[in-house]
Amino acid sequence: MVPKITKQKNNALANRARMLVSCPDQPGIVAAVSRFLFDYGANIIQSDQYTMEPAQGGLFFIRIEFDLEDLDNRRQQLKADFSKIAEKFSMEWSITRASRKKRLAILVSKEDHCLLELLWHWQSGDLDAEIAMVISNHNEMRDLVESLGIPYHHIPVTADTKAEAERRHLELVKGNVDAIILARYMQIISPTFIEHFPNKIINIHHSFLPAFVGGKPYAQAHNRGVKIIGATAHYVTEELDGGPIIEQDVQRVSHRDNVDDLKRIGRHIERTVLAKAVNWHVEDRVIVHENKTVVFS
Amino acid sequence: MVPKITKQKNNALANRARMLVSCPDQPGIVAAVSRFLFDYGANIIQSDQYTMEPAQGGLFFIRIEFDLEDLDNRRQQLKADFSKIAEKFSMEWSITRASRKKRLAILVSKEDHCLLELLWHWQSGDLDAEIAMVISNHNEMRDLVESLGIPYHHIPVTADTKAEAERRHLELVKGNVDAIILARYMQIISPTFIEHFPNKIINIHHSFLPAFVGGKPYAQAHNRGVKIIGATAHYVTEELDGGPIIEQDVQRVSHRDNVDDLKRIGRHIERTVLAKAVNWHVEDRVIVHENKTVVFS
Amino acid sequence: MVPKITKQKNNALANRARMLVSCPDQPGIVAAVSRFLFDYGANIIQSDQYTMEPAQGGLFFIRIEFDLEDLDNRRQQLKADFSKIAEKFSMEWSITRASRKKRLAILVSKEDHCLLELLWHWQSGDLDAEIAMVISNHNEMRDLVESLGIPYHHIPVTADTKAEAERRHLELVKGNVDAIILARYMQIISPTFIEHFPNKIINIHHSFLPAFVGGKPYAQAHNRGVKIIGATAHYVTEELDGGPIIEQDVQRVSHRDNVDDLKRIGRHIERTVLAKAVNWHVEDRVIVHENKTVVFS
Amino acid sequence: MVPKITKQKNNALANRARMLVSCPDQPGIVAAVSRFLFDYGANIIQSDQYTMEPAQGGLFFIRIEFDLEDLDNRRQQLKADFSKIAEKFSMEWSITRASRKKRLAILVSKEDHCLLELLWHWQSGDLDAEIAMVISNHNEMRDLVESLGIPYHHIPVTADTKAEAERRHLELVKGNVDAIILARYMQIISPTFIEHFPNKIINIHHSFLPAFVGGKPYAQAHNRGVKIIGATAHYVTEELDGGPIIEQDVQRVSHRDNVDDLKRIGRHIERTVLAKAVNWHVEDRVIVHENKTVVFS
Repeated sequence: MVPKITKQKNNALANRARMLVSCPDQPGIVAAVSRFLFDYGANIIQSDQYTMEPAQGGLFFIRIEFDLEDLDNRRQQLKADFSKIAEKFSMEWSITRASRKKRLAILVSKEDHCLLELLWHWQSGDLDAEIAMVISNHNEMRDLVESLGIPYHHIPVTADTKAEAERRHLELVKGNVDAIILARYMQIISPTFIEHFPNKIINIHHSFLPAFVGGKPYAQAHNRGVKIIGATAHYVTEELDGGPIIEQDVQRVSHRDNVDDLKRIGRHIERTVLAKAVNWHVEDRVIVHENKTVVFS
Repeated sequence: MVPKITKQKNNALANRARMLVSCPDQPGIVAAVSRFLFDYGANIIQSDQYTMEPAQGGLFFIRIEFDLEDLDNRRQQLKADFSKIAEKFSMEWSITRASRKKRLAILVSKEDHCLLELLWHWQSGDLDAEIAMVISNHNEMRDLVESLGIPYHHIPVTADTKAEAERRHLELVKGNVDAIILARYMQIISPTFIEHFPNKIINIHHSFLPAFVGGKPYAQAHNRGVKIIGATAHYVTEELDGGPIIEQDVQRVSHRDNVDDLKRIGRHIERTVLAKAVNWHVEDRVIVHENKTVVFS
Repeated sequence: MVPKITKQKNNALANRARMLVSCPDQPGIVAAVSRFLFDYGANIIQSDQYTMEPAQGGLFFIRIEFDLEDLDNRRQQLKADFSKIAEKFSMEWSITRASRKKRLAILVSKEDHCLLELLWHWQSGDLDAEIAMVISNHNEMRDLVESLGIPYHHIPVTADTKAEAERRHLELVKGNVDAIILARYMQIISPTFIEHFPNKIINIHHSFLPAFVGGKPYAQAHNRGVKIIGATAHYVTEELDGGPIIEQDVQRVSHRDNVDDLKRIGRHIERTVLAKAVNWHVEDRVIVHENKTVVFS
Repeated sequence: MVPKITKQKNNALANRARMLVSCPDQPGIVAAVSRFLFDYGANIIQSDQYTMEPAQGGLFFIRIEFDLEDLDNRRQQLKADFSKIAEKFSMEWSITRASRKKRLAILVSKEDHCLLELLWHWQSGDLDAEIAMVISNHNEMRDLVESLGIPYHHIPVTADTKAEAERRHLELVKGNVDAIILARYMQIISPTFIEHFPNKIINIHHSFLPAFVGGKPYAQAHNRGVKIIGATAHYVTEELDGGPIIEQDVQRVSHRDNVDDLKRIGRHIERTVLAKAVNWHVEDRVIVHENKTVVFS
């Protein structure tokens, strides 16, 4: 099933491309890139740039959305030609088509709010991606997911079957999806698995990281008596809850809120934060540099 | 110098009292307290209550503001009579007069924004306290403070003179002030000093605790790539940055903000959060229970 | 279908009652009410009070949650006995059982986000109400709603059939529901209909009222160049978008957001604000006084 | 008196320039501008662009910060050369030096919080402007202002002397200041005066415009029972409270807050919002288009 709204959107975006560049800062980068696009007859729709620490040499980041007629047929040549400029400025770069939707696998355990939110954004056309599959260590959400035409894989996980489960995960997703969303998936992902998807696995952690790393963050927050709770969407790296932060948000709480209240309030923060992060990821708005993100939102 | 607005306010509040009570929960507490006040002819202006964990026995907290005619002359009798009820319900309690302003000592180092904020609230009548003195390990703010008629004590602190400095601090404040405000005072207070002012020293920490405990929190925040920064006002206990949290607030930041930007943005959060916490403290709105606060704001 | 979580919650709340009182302020109200409950053997779980303009006579509002053993059998007597106190203090009052869920009719047009949000809260047990029916002038959401076991009534509305449609609405809801939720129902409700449900119809308006009353508020907002947009949940009165405000919230926007962006951002605000307002209503947390609300949230 | 911090900053910014451009959208603008700067040997530090309604022809806006060696001596030539590009693309444009601080006149009545905030930002080096004078229809703030070395002009205003007062205002500011800040100046400015400073007079209105235009907005807000109050900084035009909005912010309130509370809470919003707007204005971050602003913050 393809959401109706997304379909209309895509036709309008058939010739839309997104260029992401990061390189050492030096004069002339913008001039070279914009001249290249102009000579190609492309029309720049939006452009965002950022220079990190300009005083100390600096790193230059730019994201450009542009329209190019007959993009589909010309993109190979475009990339080949651009690679010369890229080489000159030592760029890391990518050019992607807006019409080529990223394929997502969503992993979920028992709590459904983050999954529901992503499905709602997808159905309403706000999440411009293809949901290739939902994988869960429980079976509860099968009906809902399958009723939307999305494949559902129930892969139980116990201490004994953890390695086997992950092998099956890998079989399902490898070469088949562009990104993996941990929508409150309560199992730890192994370093081996992560290596296959560097900066392509997005997790939602139910605290304002780096506060309350690890398990039961709402209980930790209640115990510490904080007056604000939060949630954090981040790329998954080997370090537990330590990967590059994509988005965070918070909500005010008080002494009146017990752990269950914090969980209830927290669910709203989690789903909003995760949806934003996934959205930015699929629209190529996030560049990871070391352990931080540059987000051109 | 007494701010004009505060003076007017106080006349209106000459008969206003504030009762703070915490005790094990049981039926009949509110009935007993409200009956007592009614029999005395008092008029309840505001009342806030909270039961912590009612299912497991529970702890009961209540704050009542009431007006009682001729309060000044009758308060000793009022307290003596109330102590019988308090005993019956094993209450910890206090009754204070709104017209009896708390005396504050403000400690400050080089950064002046928190001090300026408190002085502004005080001058505009929003901070209902007496600023008994400002103590600083620097001399820069003497003119400003003295021009407002507030004594200024310059007590330099070096590694060698730390103990001596603290002795002089104690001499100045002991028996002379009700609370001590660390308005970006960048020296660590010793456990011995803290013992003299349990839950009466308020510090502003420039991070969203428990994230970024200790020094240079904005550098830590920048390093971790957080998308939101914050500040925390808390009572000072032996554990560094570990005391009961009174208030916190946050502000959104982005990859564009370097450490200096975070400091600049943070200054606004710090001054607002500290001013709120001090305000609640002087109006007897905070009850500390173990390492948490109940704030009847 | 009854959501599982709600069921458990209700058993725990079988003896929970909620008392709402408003009356002219005078000494002794709290003493009388709390004494009454104590004599009855009730246990006060939570109590919130507020005095409006205490200096000018004042109006007193209180909400008390209490547990009373065998509530179901004793509530008639409880009410009869309380009415004597109520008379003495000229109270407007109600005592309701927490276990007796309010029945809601949800009216919706084409945009589904507010309906979906209410259904999600209901399924997760956060909305403690019974959804008696969904009524729509469109047929799109029938499958979803009926799959949850909720009756769906498709009542088309044209200029010619408006009166007839409203007659059918009334037939469905009168005596059958406790409140009506306009979850982005894009038809104007007639004064005659409103009279049957005073302060019992909740609408979500897609602007920060009183800014942008009437149609196309996001276009109005874009046109005015505001930097923040909002949504408002309010009780429906004869005056269009003029009834008592229950809840509002806002979100920051910029010159980059066109009308479609504002609509997309606004949908998130709308669903959150409406869900909060409905939640407070069904938990008897809202008292309407003239054209304002007192919300004991 | 020149704040110490600002002085240091300025030395670093001696060669920093800011270019603001708006023109009809068409391919090649960025290429032409960035090529021009590259050929001149300028180094782009930051660049922000925005295309309004790209589908319908569109308007293009760009703000570029760049460093150019020996800027002071070369800027006349730079402007002359750039005017050829500007002509080709029908640009409205400006190039200003960051080191050339804008001169401000601040007008204030009795409430001092907005003035104090601006002075604090100025002293701490966060407001990169010169405060040329403070004008007030009252005399209360003379000592404070003069103690900072800023000229203070007391010009009383009555119904009879209004025209004469404005004549004196004009005498003081015309040709002498770059912008005028109404920091809670409670007199209406005449259209004649406004004409001399198009989009150069910034006012802080104490409501979330367009809600509560005109007098006593906090009383209006209280009367309407809103749950959030706000403040709006805008350029002054002939239409009262109707000019282009630069910045807005809000704060949550409740039924407990009376008009005085709203005023107190509102003061914090007002000072923050005005300081931000003034800051953006003096850093050439605001472009006015028709009745809206593009803010490159």
